Amino acid sequence: MIASAPASGRLYGVGLGPGDPDLLTVKATKILGSAPIVAYFAKKGRRGQARAIVDRWLCPTCLELPLLYPITTEKHFSDPVYVETLRAFYEDATQRIADHLSAGRDVALICEGDPLFYGSFMHLYVRLKDRFAVEVIPGVTGMSGCWSAAKVPITWGDDVLSVLPATLGGEDLAQRLGACDAAIIMKLGANLGKVRAAIREAGREGAAIYVEHGTQEAERIIRLEDKTDDLAPYFSMILIPGQGRRP
Amino acid sequence: MIASAPASGRLYGVGLGPGDPDLLTVKATKILGSAPIVAYFAKKGRRGQARAIVDRWLCPTCLELPLLYPITTEKHFSDPVYVETLRAFYEDATQRIADHLSAGRDVALICEGDPLFYGSFMHLYVRLKDRFAVEVIPGVTGMSGCWSAAKVPITWGDDVLSVLPATLGGEDLAQRLGACDAAIIMKLGANLGKVRAAIREAGREGAAIYVEHGTQEAERIIRLEDKTDDLAPYFSMILIPGQGRRP
Repeated sequence: MIASAPASGRLYGVGLGPGDPDLLTVKATKILGSAPIVAYFAKKGRRGQARAIVDRWLCPTCLELPLLYPITTEKHFSDPVYVETLRAFYEDATQRIADHLSAGRDVALICEGDPLFYGSFMHLYVRLKDRFAVEVIPGVTGMSGCWSAAKVPITWGDDVLSVLPATLGGEDLAQRLGACDAAIIMKLGANLGKVRAAIREAGREGAAIYVEHGTQEAERIIRLEDKTDDLAPYFSMILIPGQGRRP
Repeated sequence: MIASAPASGRLYGVGLGPGDPDLLTVKATKILGSAPIVAYFAKKGRRGQARAIVDRWLCPTCLELPLLYPITTEKHFSDPVYVETLRAFYEDATQRIADHLSAGRDVALICEGDPLFYGSFMHLYVRLKDRFAVEVIPGVTGMSGCWSAAKVPITWGDDVLSVLPATLGGEDLAQRLGACDAAIIMKLGANLGKVRAAIREAGREGAAIYVEHGTQEAERIIRLEDKTDDLAPYFSMILIPGQGRRP
């Protein structure tokens, strides 16, 4: 060989936690302080929450690689055009990251919460993992941030916890809420009215706590019964704490 | 008043994450670097895992307050002597911490994982929260640490996640495993044989991954089908990843 190819870079999936920049792990700050390329998802025209969280932690000489979602509204996943648009977006993002990795540059792909828990990171991870070295840095999940901010012990002893997306059908939600001890209902968005009805049907409205922007400046925590409207940001959630054994 | 009482100290419930000391949050390290009193649970005769994790982060002048469990084996919670022994232990630990708080000293009570997710912290929190200011610092959960170490995307899209203690009955476990997309089975200990049978009954053995000592030196990750014995430490777990939508 006349010239050897550079060793490939390493992909880091870096969990950022629920929003407070001090809730990054030490490991995450170390990787961000030295990564030559920092990639992040954002909506077109926005800097995005992930990029905002890491502001104080970035290496000053790093190159930023924004990955801009082509779709900005909550669309239904059954729409084939939506799915195809997303697929093409993930393919393109994969290629952009692969180009840096192939050239020997490490890439930190930052993710709100934990990278492998409902994270967009996973869509690139499955496309890159067989070609490049990958390391995943876990983060504090959004739900941990919310129950800590609300000071709600969520599971005790032998409690069963269910994590339920608000997109499930109302009957399904109600049935599942009746069958677990503790529950988190995620990604409320436009679904709060349906979710509230399901919680009521399961007889659990009295215990439900609504949290939006947990651990962030705009944090708001109230009993669901005290919330008089059904308006909720996409990343808001409802906590229903367990009541397990407590000596 | 002739002499005013000192302002009370603040209790911090500090999540330590899954084991790797670099997986503490920045916020946790700041509190540990300045807390005058650091309390931790341990078994009698041991330093304990929580204390080991924070070794590099403690303020050199802090006073350590070990809270030593009077019981060291896995006992069944239906035993009234066990429950009463634990209750007396928590009452005593509460009093020792309250004494420091009343004297105006902040106390950091450190907890593996996240303080409000199956944490012993909660038993002291409910006894202290109405008398003292409390702040809870969320941590990376043990399960996040394990699925990150195993590089297993755990939940996609609209996946439902169930967190199931291994102490549940076999039939109950099998039924719940059949009704969710992703599952974590925690606190395996002596229950692995029963858990394995339940996973098999639910037809999910092929996807199950066994993790012990996740993110720690002794970490071991294997497919459950490849684990030929039923020996498992108490804090080991099984991951069954979801298969939700992925464009």
